[in-house]
Parts: sequence; C-alpha cells; structure tokens
Amino acid sequence: MAAPVTPPRGMRDFLPAEKARREHALRTIRGVYAAHGFDEIETPVMEDSQRLHAGLGGDNEKLAFAVMRRGLSGDDLAAAAASGDALSLADLGLRYDLTVPLARFYATHRAALPPVFRSIQVAPVWRAERPQKGRFRQFVQCDIDIIGEPGPLAELELLTATLATLDALGLTGCTIRINDRRILAGVLASWGVAEELRERALIVIDKLDKIGPDGVAAELRELGVEKSDVARELRQLETAHWHLLDEGEPPVWLDLDAYRDLLALRAALPDAAIEFDPTLVRGMGYYTGTIFEIAHPEYGYSLGGGGRYDGMIGRFLGQEVPACGFSIGFERIVDLLQVADEAGARAVVLVHEKDVPVERLLALKAELVASGARVRLERRVKNLKSLLDRVAADGFDAFATVNAATADASQLEFRELGVSPR
Amino acid sequence: MAAPVTPPRGMRDFLPAEKARREHALRTIRGVYAAHGFDEIETPVMEDSQRLHAGLGGDNEKLAFAVMRRGLSGDDLAAAAASGDALSLADLGLRYDLTVPLARFYATHRAALPPVFRSIQVAPVWRAERPQKGRFRQFVQCDIDIIGEPGPLAELELLTATLATLDALGLTGCTIRINDRRILAGVLASWGVAEELRERALIVIDKLDKIGPDGVAAELRELGVEKSDVARELRQLETAHWHLLDEGEPPVWLDLDAYRDLLALRAALPDAAIEFDPTLVRGMGYYTGTIFEIAHPEYGYSLGGGGRYDGMIGRFLGQEVPACGFSIGFERIVDLLQVADEAGARAVVLVHEKDVPVERLLALKAELVASGARVRLERRVKNLKSLLDRVAADGFDAFATVNAATADASQLEFRELGVSPR
Repeated sequence: MAAPVTPPRGMRDFLPAEKARREHALRTIRGVYAAHGFDEIETPVMEDSQRLHAGLGGDNEKLAFAVMRRGLSGDDLAAAAASGDALSLADLGLRYDLTVPLARFYATHRAALPPVFRSIQVAPVWRAERPQKGRFRQFVQCDIDIIGEPGPLAELELLTATLATLDALGLTGCTIRINDRRILAGVLASWGVAEELRERALIVIDKLDKIGPDGVAAELRELGVEKSDVARELRQLETAHWHLLDEGEPPVWLDLDAYRDLLALRAALPDAAIEFDPTLVRGMGYYTGTIFEIAHPEYGYSLGGGGRYDGMIGRFLGQEVPACGFSIGFERIVDLLQVADEAGARAVVLVHEKDVPVERLLALKAELVASGARVRLERRVKNLKSLLDRVAADGFDAFATVNAATADASQLEFRELGVSPR
Repeated sequence: MAAPVTPPRGMRDFLPAEKARREHALRTIRGVYAAHGFDEIETPVMEDSQRLHAGLGGDNEKLAFAVMRRGLSGDDLAAAAASGDALSLADLGLRYDLTVPLARFYATHRAALPPVFRSIQVAPVWRAERPQKGRFRQFVQCDIDIIGEPGPLAELELLTATLATLDALGLTGCTIRINDRRILAGVLASWGVAEELRERALIVIDKLDKIGPDGVAAELRELGVEKSDVARELRQLETAHWHLLDEGEPPVWLDLDAYRDLLALRAALPDAAIEFDPTLVRGMGYYTGTIFEIAHPEYGYSLGGGGRYDGMIGRFLGQEVPACGFSIGFERIVDLLQVADEAGARAVVLVHEKDVPVERLLALKAELVASGARVRLERRVKNLKSLLDRVAADGFDAFATVNAATADASQLEFRELGVSPR
C-alpha cells in the first residue's frame, strides 16, 4: 500500500465538475468585464523578489512564497547561514496579489498602452497563510483596474462593471459600502489622533466588524488615543447615511469635499444599492481616496472590494499615476453560485460491448462529435445502473448501447439519463 | 528616472491583443477536447519537492524552480551550508510538466474518477532553462491523457482528438509520426546493444534530426556499440514505411507484434496522415509502447507529441495503471495561428468631449453594453486620428463622438474604423 498522497498543504485539486463550475464563472466574469471596455492582460506568476518586498504589498509581503536562486554555491549557503537571512537565497517570489505585478507591468509597457488603460486580470495568487476553512494558499483573484483616469469616471466604470458582473453571476441582493480615506482622516482628526498614529489607528478601526465599538475604543486607547467617548462616536458613525447635508449643521468629523464626491457617485448610479459607511477602512495602506466593498446580507464577509490608489501604480515608474481598482473575491463567490449546466452541446455516452471493433466505435464517435455533441465512450460493465448514475452525475444527458451489430449512428437508440444533482 | 523594469528573465507579459489571441486558441483547444469526451481538471502549480524529484521527470527535474520552506531557522541554514544541499531548504517546487502532477492527482482522487478517465490539463509549467529564442521559463502545456485503458482505443481517441484540434485551429498539413518503444528495442537488439546501454542509446538516437546518421553512429560507437554499419542502417530505417510485411521477409530489426499494432491504428484512422518512423524516440524514459509526434513540413520542430506510459501514473499509487497521453506544443502553435477577430460582439468607442456629464457617459455606455456591444470610453484628444488608429488596432470596429448635446444613444452617429493589422 502506497503512502497517502495529497496536494500541498492549503492547496486544492479541482475535479471535472468543480473545474467546470469555476471555468463557467470565470467566463462570465471575463465576458462582462470585456463588454464594459476592459482588456485582459497576463503577467508571469513570479516577480523579482525585491519588487515583491518593496513595501507595496503590506502584510502580504510576509506571506510571499520565495523561489530559490538556481545554482546556489556553498559560499551562498554559508553567507545566508552567517547572516541568518534566508531571503538572500531567493531571487524570485510568487505574487501574493495582482496589484504589485500590475504596477510592474504598467512601468514596463506604458508606451504601448492607451492613456486611460482598463485592465482585467483573472489569475491565481499565492500566500503562505495558515490554512483554515475558506482560506487557501493558492486562490484566484479577479481584478479590474483603471489607470490614468483621475476623475470619478474611473470609480463609476468600475462600480458599473462590477455590479453588472454580480448580476450576470446571478448574485442578487448585493450592496456596495462606500467611503473615502479623506473621511476617515477627518474622523481621526476630530478625535485628535496624531498624524503618525493614523495608519495604525485605521488598522484598529478595520477590526470594527470583529471586535465591535468597545473593542476598537479599547485598542485605540492602548495606542494612545485619549478621546474618551470613541465607542459612542463609532456607533453614531455606523448609522451615518446619505442625508447628512440635509439636516442642518453637518457633523464636525465629515470631510465635506469627499462626502459630496460620494454623493455624486451615488447620484450617477441611481439603480445601485450603495451605502455610505464612514467606518469602512479596507486593509491596504495604499488607498488614497474612494474605497468600496461588496456586502451581502446573507454572508458575514465581504465579497470583494477596491478603491483609489493614486500613489502606487507609478512607483516603479518614478512618477505618480492615478489608479483605481475593484477586485471580486472569486473563491468566496464561486461557492455561492448555483451554476446551471451550460446550455449548449448535448452530451452523450456510448456504452459499448467488448466485441465492437475499435474502428466502428471511432467512426460512431466521430459522427456524433461532428453533429455537435460531446461524446464519451464507456465499456459495458455488469452493473449498468451504477455506470449510468456516474455518467449522469458527470453531466451527460443520454446514452446508447453499441454492439457488434451497430453499423452506423442512425441505429443508435438514445435514452435520456436522469438528472442527478451535481 | 526610475530604473528599467522587466518581467523576470525568460518570462513574458501578455498585452491585450496577444492575451486575446492566446485565450482564443485555448478556448478552441478546450472545446474540441471536451467534445471528444475529455474532462478538464486542475492541480496546484506547486507539488511537494520529493514528488517532483522522484525520478519521473527525467532531465526536467533538474530544471525545477524550488520554493523555500517558510520559517527557516538559523540551524536550517547552517545545516544546508554544512551539507552543501540547497534543495534541503525547499519543501515545494513549481511543476515542470503536467504528467507528474497528473500521477499525483490520480493517486489522490482515483476513487472519485471513472474507470477510464480522460483528462484535459491546460496550464502553465516552469523550467529554469537558459532562455533562448522560442524557449521560455514559464509556458503553457495542453495535455490530454487517458488513464485506465490498456487497449488501442486510448491511442485512437487521443490521435482523433488531437487531429481535430489542429484542424479547428486551422493548422493544416500536419503529419503524425508514429513508432513503438518495442520497435526501438528490436532495432537495438539487432545491433547487439546490451540491455544496460539501451536507455542511453535511445538518447543518442533521439538526436538523429540534429546530428544525422553519421553523428549518431559516432556517438553510439563512443558508447560501446560495436556494430560497424549503424549509419547505413539508420538511413534505411528513415525510409521505412507501411508495407514492410507485403514485400517478402520483414527486416530482422522489426518487432512484428508492435508493427501490426501500428498498422491497426493507421487502418482505424484512414483519413489521417500517419507516418511510420522507427527512428522516433521521444525523449522521456517513461514511455512503454506507442509514441507519436506532430510534424509539419514548414517547421523544423515538433508541434507536440505523446505516447503510452503504463508504468508511471500508478507510481504514487503503488500499482500499475495503463496510461497514454498527447501534448500539444501550445507556445509553438500559437505563434503560427492566423487568429481572426472573434466574430461576435461589436466593439465601439465613445469619444467624449470634456464637458459631458459623467452620468450621461455612463448611461450611454450602459445602453450600448445592454445591446450586446463591447464599449470603451475615450476622452477626446487633439490628435483624433492617432486615437482612432490606436483603438482600431485594439480591435474596435466603430466610434461615435459624444458632446454636451448628446442626450441618448439614438443620437450617436457611428463611423466605421479602418481595419488595422494587429
């Protein structure tokens, strides 16, 4: 008996039915994005180690899988042992997101791209996280980004394309939570949070969903925020809405310019469910303006998010370039989908007796394939019912038996297979 | 000025036009394979290092990118420095082919798979080869494999599906060269090559295309093969054909069972161009029976190949499982294709003046997207001609200008864009 074999820890194989589900969802996503004028690109799965560790990836940098330099000498190993720096042995790493590679791609190819570039990236990323339910070490991200557009048209095209995609996937009932980093800055300023504490304070506020207003207030106090009624104010922030300017004096914490910009986004998308949430942070430190997140009443986690990050795309280029992106949480979404079998090719099975010449089988298969069907050959087994159950579960619609007397496809008698749950 | 930025050595970015070409070809390949009853699966890009170095990958094992263990201690580094074994620091590696992962996948999931399993794998692999023209460190392989079928039906279904795929891609004029490892064994036996030299002798014969019969004869002599007229016999082998049994006594080197099996394959595929080539080796040591390769008169390299490898798939399972596979050389083929723009969605550009409200632009775009078009917004620039040339090159069909007076899509006047070469 051989030892048990499994994929590497935290990584998954996809069997045919699951692979088909995923590819179907990815085709839908790509199709809607393309219709909205975005163009798909691809970068290698590896980037230079120094780029992955240039400070653009936040906490994810620590989770990068490192790829060893080829042809390491004894001296290289001795030097790493002396310095204790294992990373000195790596020249490449697997990407942990699609944003750092996009920044590198844009710096490499800017001259060949349109002034406003709308990219699609649908590709796997890798993070050496502790594996847990619903969290994997290899997973697919679906990102759209608009580079070179400083105005709200970028946010609007991203929101429109994302909402259309959720719709095409059949995921109804989603809400977009929206905020602006400037509003968060206003909140922190109103609490007297010192400039140098802001980034850390935001990380604390980002935990609001998990630890609640009292938890956040306690952690902010530890951080040195001295304002006494933070928990109460957080509760008030959670009830903020779109009518803050209609009811007399606006709250002191509210950045009016940013709020008016958000009102304009909402007005431009009258049919979309967009909620103002001044406590929305989105983890990444690189966001500079609008931030958004997809929420669904049935699920306690975000289904995607994004925002404006004007400082980052140009980092490898040495100049600032406006950019805004939206990422769909593919692994979370794909499990929620009720994917119907794709309407299209009829799928049939030919169950053949042992004494049918292979040329006959091939000719029958060719004739059916040519007619547009998907065709699988199965050798007749004693337990025909279990065979038919299996192929029905694999998505086949009908079967016919082939014996030595079957001369051509016109003699095949097809019988429908019961629809089995996948 | 920032430092130049490029993808890692030997790896490529794909810009929109090239990415679209590749995805189009991959969709065609997947579609034909699926019609022929194959099912796509996916495995993680990484496998355990010990599996990648279990002797199943041949020379490719040396080319595997190694992924460092996380949390390496100073002791780990010191131990590696002491032993000089850099690979002791890696627990994972990037796959260098799709066959080793398939063997692992099959061992993991056998109970959930049909008795005869026909797999599709369309996925990237990585090899740390010296980069050179047409050879990359990340490239896509398209493999189909039939596991569990010992008879010729496996070979026939693989050949049929592969020929249909080449046809669907528009690659006409391809020939399949075919041979059997048993025939090669017969040739070597007729030359008196000792059992223990056979594997190395095959590696030499595999260079016939490059170094010619005299070169092969010289290298075999160095290896200890004492037969004097090897070069002459190789020239005779190169002229072998399908009528060796019709002309009196068959050649002494010919394994009659294997040859009759090949004749039967050919007879079952009367429309296919299949050539018998007793000098065909195919590099990998794991082949056990039939081997085949796609040749094209215009290109001096193989466009794909495969064969029967009954011993290998079962290695991680601890038992022998019959298997046969065929791989298309995607990177070679994709460059040969004249991919027409996909018939389908009309692609239009809205060139908008600066003073058009964004809500108006969004509404126009939404209306056109809903009508089935692919839509891109472009801000009006002074040099309109260069803008139109660019979007035509990006595959757009028509454009219309939008100004402050444009109220709805019915007022748009579309003008066709010239068809530019991509």
